Amino acid sequence: LDRVSAILAGDVRAAARLMREADDRVPEAFLVLSALHPHTGRARIVGITGNPGAGKSTLVDRLVSFHRRAGKRVGVVAVDPSSPFTGGAILGDRIRMQRHATDDGVFIRSLATRGHLGGLSRSCVDVTRVLDAMGFEEILVETVGVGQDEIEVTRAAHTTVVVTAPGLGDEIQAIKAGILEAADVFCVNKADKDGADAAVRDLEMMLALANEPVFGGAHSAHHAPGALDVAKAVDSVDASTWRPPIQKTVASKDQGTAELVAAIDAHGRWLAESGEGERRARRRAREEILARLRESLVSRAIGEHGAEIDRSVDAILARATDPYRAADALVATVLAGAGTLP
Amino acid sequence: LDRVSAILAGDVRAAARLMREADDRVPEAFLVLSALHPHTGRARIVGITGNPGAGKSTLVDRLVSFHRRAGKRVGVVAVDPSSPFTGGAILGDRIRMQRHATDDGVFIRSLATRGHLGGLSRSCVDVTRVLDAMGFEEILVETVGVGQDEIEVTRAAHTTVVVTAPGLGDEIQAIKAGILEAADVFCVNKADKDGADAAVRDLEMMLALANEPVFGGAHSAHHAPGALDVAKAVDSVDASTWRPPIQKTVASKDQGTAELVAAIDAHGRWLAESGEGERRARRRAREEILARLRESLVSRAIGEHGAEIDRSVDAILARATDPYRAADALVATVLAGAGTLP
Repeated sequence: LDRVSAILAGDVRAAARLMREADDRVPEAFLVLSALHPHTGRARIVGITGNPGAGKSTLVDRLVSFHRRAGKRVGVVAVDPSSPFTGGAILGDRIRMQRHATDDGVFIRSLATRGHLGGLSRSCVDVTRVLDAMGFEEILVETVGVGQDEIEVTRAAHTTVVVTAPGLGDEIQAIKAGILEAADVFCVNKADKDGADAAVRDLEMMLALANEPVFGGAHSAHHAPGALDVAKAVDSVDASTWRPPIQKTVASKDQGTAELVAAIDAHGRWLAESGEGERRARRRAREEILARLRESLVSRAIGEHGAEIDRSVDAILARATDPYRAADALVATVLAGAGTLP
Repeated sequence: LDRVSAILAGDVRAAARLMREADDRVPEAFLVLSALHPHTGRARIVGITGNPGAGKSTLVDRLVSFHRRAGKRVGVVAVDPSSPFTGGAILGDRIRMQRHATDDGVFIRSLATRGHLGGLSRSCVDVTRVLDAMGFEEILVETVGVGQDEIEVTRAAHTTVVVTAPGLGDEIQAIKAGILEAADVFCVNKADKDGADAAVRDLEMMLALANEPVFGGAHSAHHAPGALDVAKAVDSVDASTWRPPIQKTVASKDQGTAELVAAIDAHGRWLAESGEGERRARRRAREEILARLRESLVSRAIGEHGAEIDRSVDAILARATDPYRAADALVATVLAGAGTLP
């Protein structure tokens, strides 16, 4: 396809169009993505997540400059904490990134939550794949919040950096626990502020706690129990000898940037040497297949059995049936109907 | 079934067991839930969400006491910001609720994120359904964060109260925008602190902005664009004449509790009179069916085609295929294989 070669040749407008179409689930977009796939696998994808107020955008800005000085091309995927209802982005502080906007070696793409569960992480995978195919060697995926959506997004990364800062408050501390196990590298930003050493100690304590058996495993166990726990079968071996390092930075003054990159590099080497990198790649592939499968099956059900779904809703409201029986009946219909397709 | 009558008779241990089994997706649990369904529909479900640090737990505690004084039985579903990886709850401050623990008229259930997307909101629906069948008239669903997961959870509620407090910081303000449209009632808690009036003004301004056309609709448009936007078809009429009231409270001193309940009551009347209540019920039923359909179809795919999924993962890692083609092939296999089932 023309579009494929245009993107491989670095055509930014063709790439942006593809990302938009993939986001909108245009079928042709997936043909293009499919054709791009053999050209991917060279980029390093680093997730940057953590509390609001930790200074992630500034840090990402510094990382971009660092990699540019090293001659690398850099892609940035900024995941916005937009409304899941309107689909629009709220934050405007990407303005700080604007100084890279005229640099051909930097590609910045914002992604907004689209309201359908899991949609964000899939869009993120598509976008990083396009950037990878275009030859961007370093891809930074920045999220704004610390919710499950954000954690899903960071699962697409090779290495996840969790950023915090002194003085963000105790309550936020509690939520941070939720992303503790997602962290491959910790970064205490704004390290020139009071409380930086305390923040480092807090993290060290949380890491020590997390390695207690009561927590059910180390940070590398990137999965949870549950009926649909697709990761469990793939990743039952706990190969964790990696202790997430804690790196202090002052992004506003570009302090600690090189050390943070060195920590990310070290994690990359560990991924390669320990075999964990391949395990994670398998898990990512499996999760992506299942996510696409889920979406396809339900799209077909809605498309082909919309009338029955409507009737089920009526019957539930009339209390003639309940959601459990109605869903079972629909599953039977979808599967039975499928047998008559060409 | 014995279990059904035990639960209808108020057997707390039978109810807790059912909730656990539903969470674990034990098939028999769904038979019980199905049998309970005709006995539901009497409870009022109120979602309490908002920023960490806003004092939601204290507020919920006050609401419980208020309803108890009115002679009502109260269920509380506390959605914990637990790790999606370990599945364990982190926060221990439910302790404040302990004074209701010996009250037979109060049932408190904690729900943790289970790692699979959408699982939390489905578990929440199941739990509220059990509480409803048991005759709990007021059900409060408290979430801790403000992420998409939490918003999904509040979609199960008849009325959603978004709680904030003075001095939670500008960055958090930005994220709050994400739940603006989820709010039926706003509550500015800790209203005896400096900045309470400013917080009220901020909310009023955000509400005014949200009603500008540029935001794509009013707060009642509980949906977003996207290929899998199941809500769109159901809810294309914007019936919003409801302007979310902003109620000040000081939960620590039990101030404003009655007024907050009055605001929730008023919203309930509006739901009934405007027809919006029925539209939301339709949307909830539809979303629940589709969520269960999605889960069933993928569970079957994993169960019956696990070997092919494994082979696809191998092929993707070997770059012999890509996730897009692999998923398409799996969809074909699942649907074709289904035709041969009894």
